[in-house]
Amino acid sequence: MTDQTAPVAITMGDPGGISAEITLKSWRDHRADLSPFYMIDDPNRIDHINRQLSLNCAVEPVTCLDKIGDVFKDALPVYDLGDRVLGLPGELNPQDAPLVLQSLKIAVAQVSEGQAAALVTNPVHKANLYKAGFSHPGHTEFLADLASVKTEPVMMLVSNRLRVVPVTRHLALNAAISTLSEPLIIETAEITARALQQDFGITAPRIAIAGLNPHAGEGGAMGREDIDIITPAISKLMEKGIAVSGPYSADTLFHDSARKTYDAAMCMYHDQALIPIKTLDFDTAVNVTLGLPFIRTSPDHGTALDIAGANVATETSLVAAIKMASEMARMRAKNETHA
Amino acid sequence: MTDQTAPVAITMGDPGGISAEITLKSWRDHRADLSPFYMIDDPNRIDHINRQLSLNCAVEPVTCLDKIGDVFKDALPVYDLGDRVLGLPGELNPQDAPLVLQSLKIAVAQVSEGQAAALVTNPVHKANLYKAGFSHPGHTEFLADLASVKTEPVMMLVSNRLRVVPVTRHLALNAAISTLSEPLIIETAEITARALQQDFGITAPRIAIAGLNPHAGEGGAMGREDIDIITPAISKLMEKGIAVSGPYSADTLFHDSARKTYDAAMCMYHDQALIPIKTLDFDTAVNVTLGLPFIRTSPDHGTALDIAGANVATETSLVAAIKMASEMARMRAKNETHA
Repeated sequence: MTDQTAPVAITMGDPGGISAEITLKSWRDHRADLSPFYMIDDPNRIDHINRQLSLNCAVEPVTCLDKIGDVFKDALPVYDLGDRVLGLPGELNPQDAPLVLQSLKIAVAQVSEGQAAALVTNPVHKANLYKAGFSHPGHTEFLADLASVKTEPVMMLVSNRLRVVPVTRHLALNAAISTLSEPLIIETAEITARALQQDFGITAPRIAIAGLNPHAGEGGAMGREDIDIITPAISKLMEKGIAVSGPYSADTLFHDSARKTYDAAMCMYHDQALIPIKTLDFDTAVNVTLGLPFIRTSPDHGTALDIAGANVATETSLVAAIKMASEMARMRAKNETHA
Repeated sequence: MTDQTAPVAITMGDPGGISAEITLKSWRDHRADLSPFYMIDDPNRIDHINRQLSLNCAVEPVTCLDKIGDVFKDALPVYDLGDRVLGLPGELNPQDAPLVLQSLKIAVAQVSEGQAAALVTNPVHKANLYKAGFSHPGHTEFLADLASVKTEPVMMLVSNRLRVVPVTRHLALNAAISTLSEPLIIETAEITARALQQDFGITAPRIAIAGLNPHAGEGGAMGREDIDIITPAISKLMEKGIAVSGPYSADTLFHDSARKTYDAAMCMYHDQALIPIKTLDFDTAVNVTLGLPFIRTSPDHGTALDIAGANVATETSLVAAIKMASEMARMRAKNETHA
């Protein structure tokens, strides 16, 4: 059960990055436009960075989530992780890795119990987590494991003008090609269609599917995957009553009038999905994880270690992620009430 | 020697397509904004389509190119191919294939002799040419052969907001990956840099080079081509004094502020180049062939057999191609005068 009146939980991310700075700036400059949120972090660290960068925020440690709405008006609520963070912005400290994970565990527990409406995750630094024995391929897989989800979650990038889903994600391009399969495309489309209904309020979602090869292979003249893998997946999805179409030549799929013909575009690999959305909406694209039992969004950038601590990071993408998370939580709650 | 006062030659393309219709509409609705141009075609065919679609154009057969400027004010000049075209819009007639090639041969002869300032090619239908014994991989390779050019020409897509060059073009994605090589990237960048100077008037052109893999491989974690092929090519190009940079994560290369940092982006495969430019400027992107001894542009669409003869085709891309060709011819003539 999603409680849309509950606050949004924001995780710590890697303390070497810009997470504290952008979360403080989101509270300072955007709290009037956002639903209440809180950070799961070390309150001393947040207050230290607030002072050091002269951000002029108020920071309030909280141990209970009941009154977040009241606290939020006057200060950024920080739910205490329970231990002190050692690393400073701009440096990676492997000793902090357990706390990075602890922040995620607390967040998943709170959103699962309905104390939080949704989850926004600040960027982690995978190499730093690996040094501390982290064994998941990434952030998202760790969340799926915490939530006991067995199917692979789906990544969607969302901006005001476009929603895209890469069927394969962070793989070398030739590995992406060999990973493509009919079941993977079908499962991804099913999860996407369900999320478009449940979390985006689209009753009859339309999904456009890109081909892999130039001109979607031009009838097999430039590659067979479009014919051998993508087209059969589309047929089976249509048999299941999902409104998919394609495979389309990817270069014709993202201009103004093409975008009006679908609710989400499914792409075969990372750049095919990320190039169009970041060409159109570089700063405001939000990363949404579909297929988890709770709502999770994240800003579409990394830890930005190189600029951390310099007070030059922009909170635009985090603000968009917080806004998207609360809108999705409201939509899901409404759909659950009607169901 | 380029004569910028000479007219622009427009080839017939496949007569089954929309070439007559869009060339007539370009003359009818845009002649005041365009330098004089003429079509190399069967004048009877052009006049027939003009009447059939009620386009209300005047068509004038010409056998000499001296007075094109005068004719152009009152009628679309059509240089007679010398034989009758049989096929009608909407159908493919293999008997016309020799005339499709004849139009290209005449055009290359005229532009090579300076009678035409530049060449704009209407779309051909490759399968129809193959049936008639055509043995070149495509349109561009045929032109290179006619011009006795031994190096592979380079394709550039140009709009008001972006110039992109795909290093590999119409290949299945896995074939594109295996075709990538250091010499190919170097040769493509050299031809691109030269054209940016000579035909676009950019004294010190900057070329941004995309990586192949997501995040340009992230230091080898997602594919080795960025490290093993692209980076060494970039080093060698820099040693040659060409201002290249990269490899960049392709999804960060095309947003508003990124585009200000270079004059052309070189991409590793078709969709990586075509997705961003067609997302931004679907109708106005022009295809420019670099590395030929003359200027050649073409509209960025195919024969459009399915709508040929229905009077619904738009001339936007052809108009942009004609405009680009004459601007480039003026720039090349200016540079040749100064040289």
